[in-house]
Amino acid sequence: MIARSALLTDLYQLTMLQGYYRQNMQETAVFEFFVRRLPEDRGFLMAAGLQQVLDYLQQLHFSREELQWLAETGQFDSGFLERLAGLRFTGDVHAMPEGTVFFPDEPILRITAPLPEAQFVESRIINLLHFQTLIASKAARSVLTVPDRLLVDFGFRRAHGGETGLLAARASYLAGFGGTATVAAGQQFGIPVYGTMAHSFIQAHASEREAFLHFAHANPGNVVLLIDTYDTEAGARQVVEIAPILGEQHITIKAVRIDSGDLAEHAHRVRRILDRGGLHQVGIFASSSIDEYVLQQLRQQRAPIDGFGIGTRMDTSADAPYLDCAYKLQEYAGIARRKRSEGKSTWPGRKQVYRRCDPDGLLLEDIVTVHEAPCAGQPLLQQVMHAGRLTSPLPALDASRDYALQQLQSLPEPLRRLQKPPDYPVRISPELQELAQVVDRKIQ
Amino acid sequence: MIARSALLTDLYQLTMLQGYYRQNMQETAVFEFFVRRLPEDRGFLMAAGLQQVLDYLQQLHFSREELQWLAETGQFDSGFLERLAGLRFTGDVHAMPEGTVFFPDEPILRITAPLPEAQFVESRIINLLHFQTLIASKAARSVLTVPDRLLVDFGFRRAHGGETGLLAARASYLAGFGGTATVAAGQQFGIPVYGTMAHSFIQAHASEREAFLHFAHANPGNVVLLIDTYDTEAGARQVVEIAPILGEQHITIKAVRIDSGDLAEHAHRVRRILDRGGLHQVGIFASSSIDEYVLQQLRQQRAPIDGFGIGTRMDTSADAPYLDCAYKLQEYAGIARRKRSEGKSTWPGRKQVYRRCDPDGLLLEDIVTVHEAPCAGQPLLQQVMHAGRLTSPLPALDASRDYALQQLQSLPEPLRRLQKPPDYPVRISPELQELAQVVDRKIQ
Repeated sequence: MIARSALLTDLYQLTMLQGYYRQNMQETAVFEFFVRRLPEDRGFLMAAGLQQVLDYLQQLHFSREELQWLAETGQFDSGFLERLAGLRFTGDVHAMPEGTVFFPDEPILRITAPLPEAQFVESRIINLLHFQTLIASKAARSVLTVPDRLLVDFGFRRAHGGETGLLAARASYLAGFGGTATVAAGQQFGIPVYGTMAHSFIQAHASEREAFLHFAHANPGNVVLLIDTYDTEAGARQVVEIAPILGEQHITIKAVRIDSGDLAEHAHRVRRILDRGGLHQVGIFASSSIDEYVLQQLRQQRAPIDGFGIGTRMDTSADAPYLDCAYKLQEYAGIARRKRSEGKSTWPGRKQVYRRCDPDGLLLEDIVTVHEAPCAGQPLLQQVMHAGRLTSPLPALDASRDYALQQLQSLPEPLRRLQKPPDYPVRISPELQELAQVVDRKIQ
Repeated sequence: MIARSALLTDLYQLTMLQGYYRQNMQETAVFEFFVRRLPEDRGFLMAAGLQQVLDYLQQLHFSREELQWLAETGQFDSGFLERLAGLRFTGDVHAMPEGTVFFPDEPILRITAPLPEAQFVESRIINLLHFQTLIASKAARSVLTVPDRLLVDFGFRRAHGGETGLLAARASYLAGFGGTATVAAGQQFGIPVYGTMAHSFIQAHASEREAFLHFAHANPGNVVLLIDTYDTEAGARQVVEIAPILGEQHITIKAVRIDSGDLAEHAHRVRRILDRGGLHQVGIFASSSIDEYVLQQLRQQRAPIDGFGIGTRMDTSADAPYLDCAYKLQEYAGIARRKRSEGKSTWPGRKQVYRRCDPDGLLLEDIVTVHEAPCAGQPLLQQVMHAGRLTSPLPALDASRDYALQQLQSLPEPLRRLQKPPDYPVRISPELQELAQVVDRKIQ
């Protein structure tokens, strides 16, 4: 379900490669992926998508039909198309593990490969890393806001595409969500899948009561009843009435779901109705335009809600729908390079990021430096691919999720703020500053 | 490249279907897709994505592996899984043609099918229609702002996924863009593909001049030179210097591209440099965080820019990254239905939308009414599928694009405004209001 075509790229990759092959420019190039600045109201980001990048690099090739189509465009000569037919990724990859918290100017991925390969993969690498990093970073904010509640991704329908919905489920699970409604994410990634009924199920029946009973009989292990189709509190009373009937049939109602109106007010009322009816063990699950800001409000209102379905606003990262990220050439043929366009200049050369924490394990500062310079702290970039092959199997998604939760725990309180978090100190080492000056002098 | 798995859906579709099959609830259901309200600063929307919806409906089935995986979850009984194995879409589809301008409360798609089929397809239909409609609606705003300029989709890298980048290229082309940088969109949809070089191409060479010459020799038919890697005006002067050299080799420079800084200021200066150098025919192409608001500004500044690469902000619809849309049950077993949840109630029954225009062809008002009621105006929903088969081939993408441009021309000036457009009059017919009252009385 993850699109594999080598044509999922920008045309300029091909026109540039035609130039590189013609001049035989195939020495080693180093590109790095990083974020230039954080969106407003983001204190940190969480790296995600590495697995899909490595899958992409391992399977990269042009099919015969794709080459045929390229030939028909008339833009490419036959010698170049032969080179493309043989194109594989044979380089090295260094990366921060998925789930790592990171900050602007810090490379989270470094590609070292012959120039045409390292260049060609730019478009899809950005496409894959950008999206999952965007979503994991957004989802982590909900996780930090209500760490003791079940959070479920409900966003497939308004995610920007099918592959997208699948990867949003993965990224949010990585960041600490408990599961997703997207069935394919269960099959592909082993993520727990949640879901019961829509309003249409209630409406298709002659009455709400009949709909509840039918659903429970058909899905006795998964009885979560949607109670707001007509009147939320009446729906809750209906649940109290049918609970003993289902109980006699050894069917337990797990929870009710509320999907409209003032969620805190309804949850308080519904909790009272359920409790008075003896249904203390029946949980309340809420959905409807929820994001971390709404969660914060509901928490302040002490809304008795046990779990949340979080959809559109997370799967589209609605308050910050993109990151200002880039994949830039930092070195070619052994010489460090630097882009100096206004407002878009980069730090040159191969880099490493070191992290320093306080004795409690809370983040203190990061240092970005040239990769071979000695530096105190924990290096964050690790080699994951050598000569086109994985150096070792990547961690399972659940292991990455555990690591991500540890990473979130290492965030000092100010960085967790949903609004106006402070800047985290990312220092550029003297060695890297000097390298930048050397590169600048050469350009002049 | 468009993901096909039947598991790209929400779990509740399956749990509901298990209920429907168990009760043998397979009478005809009618669902409609519509948008509840416009995002801020949107005067209209443009329908898009129907082709992909119809492709999805025609190929819908569960593979053996998918059924096997569902069985292993333990949530579904074997009788139900057998039903799923035979699930195909056998219903009817009525829809507004792609490219149609539409407004809130107007169904743009109606599905009429046995309840389990009509229900099951909800998640992916929303997923497909929502995204392309979102992007076509956003792209149309740029088209209306600079109708006399070339607009090219540059958004693949920060689109939310691979399939997404491909569909964003399609939706923006439908809305009037001239092409895309995404190669796969050329192959899949026949959309013109544009692109030349990135900054890395310049940086990998010893000098900008060398990079320009190498590129021109490798791509003599497609010479657009990126001039802002080090200094935009110096880059323009470089272009003036090499133009005669390339001219002797019968290579023409088509354009230069600027990708940073104050685009209007640079464009004015670069235009002067090119003109003084005799390069009147060399165009200026600009990119870098462009959207319709920036285009409006550049137009006011009379920036001499001939074409624009429009990326992230369009492919993510950054100022409105989602639509408040829904796919709702409107009728089951011959009886009109209505959801009444707070803030989410819907108009019941099968509906048709009629449009009235003034003598110049400009939109006057739309009327939403029950589908068989007589009404003056042009009906917008047309039957496109009968019993699971297309009633006739859909129009080619270029024909839909022509139709979309006509639709945009039918918009009165106020609706085209980028900020605070007025509400367009969408009237609910007396017949439909009466039907809603009848349905409400029944529920009570």
